[in-house]
Amino acid sequence: MKTQKSSALFLDAMLSAICGTMLSTALFAGLFTVVYFTSATITPATAKGDNAKEAVEFDAQGNLIQPDNFAWREWVYIGSPLTPNDLNPPQASFPEFHNVYINPEAYAHYKQTGKFPQGTVIIKELVSVGSTQASSGKGYFQGDFIGLEATVKDAKRFPDEPGNWAYFTFSHEPAPYPRTAKLQPAASCNMACHQALAEDDWVFTQYYPVLRDAKGKGM
Amino acid sequence: MKTQKSSALFLDAMLSAICGTMLSTALFAGLFTVVYFTSATITPATAKGDNAKEAVEFDAQGNLIQPDNFAWREWVYIGSPLTPNDLNPPQASFPEFHNVYINPEAYAHYKQTGKFPQGTVIIKELVSVGSTQASSGKGYFQGDFIGLEATVKDAKRFPDEPGNWAYFTFSHEPAPYPRTAKLQPAASCNMACHQALAEDDWVFTQYYPVLRDAKGKGM
Repeated sequence: MKTQKSSALFLDAMLSAICGTMLSTALFAGLFTVVYFTSATITPATAKGDNAKEAVEFDAQGNLIQPDNFAWREWVYIGSPLTPNDLNPPQASFPEFHNVYINPEAYAHYKQTGKFPQGTVIIKELVSVGSTQASSGKGYFQGDFIGLEATVKDAKRFPDEPGNWAYFTFSHEPAPYPRTAKLQPAASCNMACHQALAEDDWVFTQYYPVLRDAKGKGM
Repeated sequence: MKTQKSSALFLDAMLSAICGTMLSTALFAGLFTVVYFTSATITPATAKGDNAKEAVEFDAQGNLIQPDNFAWREWVYIGSPLTPNDLNPPQASFPEFHNVYINPEAYAHYKQTGKFPQGTVIIKELVSVGSTQASSGKGYFQGDFIGLEATVKDAKRFPDEPGNWAYFTFSHEPAPYPRTAKLQPAASCNMACHQALAEDDWVFTQYYPVLRDAKGKGM
């Protein structure tokens, strides 16, 4: 139950809609379930590399600072979920590509252990659907960058967050994105959220073939 | 005209179809046009880092050796064109996601100069469309890795290839991919190819927002 608290508000900010719908929670699960569930067994006491090298920094108020120079675009790409408008009339909740990245240190740890270390950062950059018709056929081609979100796993900094993951939304507008993003506060959520999140663990992890293929397979 | 020679056979191998169709050439252009056109002004004499650090290796027969441990998945991701079957009945020529990566050294050079250095490697890994229906809506979600292709720019190794780019297809089957891939030999192509390739330069570069955003903007 606790797991849904931050995820719910995270989605509220994205959707400007209430928490508790299967749709919104499931989308969140699709983006981050693989992270949450695979990291659930890591405790601060046993996690390796606990903040040894932070991929991101926070300001004095605890806001997440945007990595300089779009650094995440040189991190490890893990997948691009897409639910376009034309398949979800009249309007998809998330009509853009979501290019999802993980910081390289966390990826290396994940390859080795199958678990996400403290300090893992997952960044999701939103990309508009650009062209939908090319000589190669009808389809979807990435247009422009239109938003930035992130989640950070840090047991020391977020001891009360589910799995120690905290969620941040920088912008749902084109770059330049704001310099910092506030932590999305925890909030209550109904059982529908929980059910969707729990039962779709396996389903949603298959959106990230890079992680699935690398998990615990050594370096 | 010369530009189409290698691209034609490269596509032939992929499509098992003849060269000369707008479709096949345009698809090729979509994958690699950004590379070809932006690199066209680089000559072996002026390019920096000419093979100073090769991102890939070749065997004694000149075959491209597959990077170890799926190393390209830790390179810089640049985009994922998608032309799914359901939008291209009865069968899309390329129904899968194409996750496209560039080696980090070439990306750094491209950011600095807006041009691709000698030794640039672009790798395209094919990913099946997995789920098309999730709680978040109808859409496209990456399934499994199902193929690997590459192009390498190297004026010394490929002096006669257009722009010094050579094309390789490792596999259109799931991993493990073959250890090596042969150079796709040059072949003739008709003027329709040329026209499609030329006029879609601008159009196809917009499939790679990461490159477009970084081009020549410094480090």
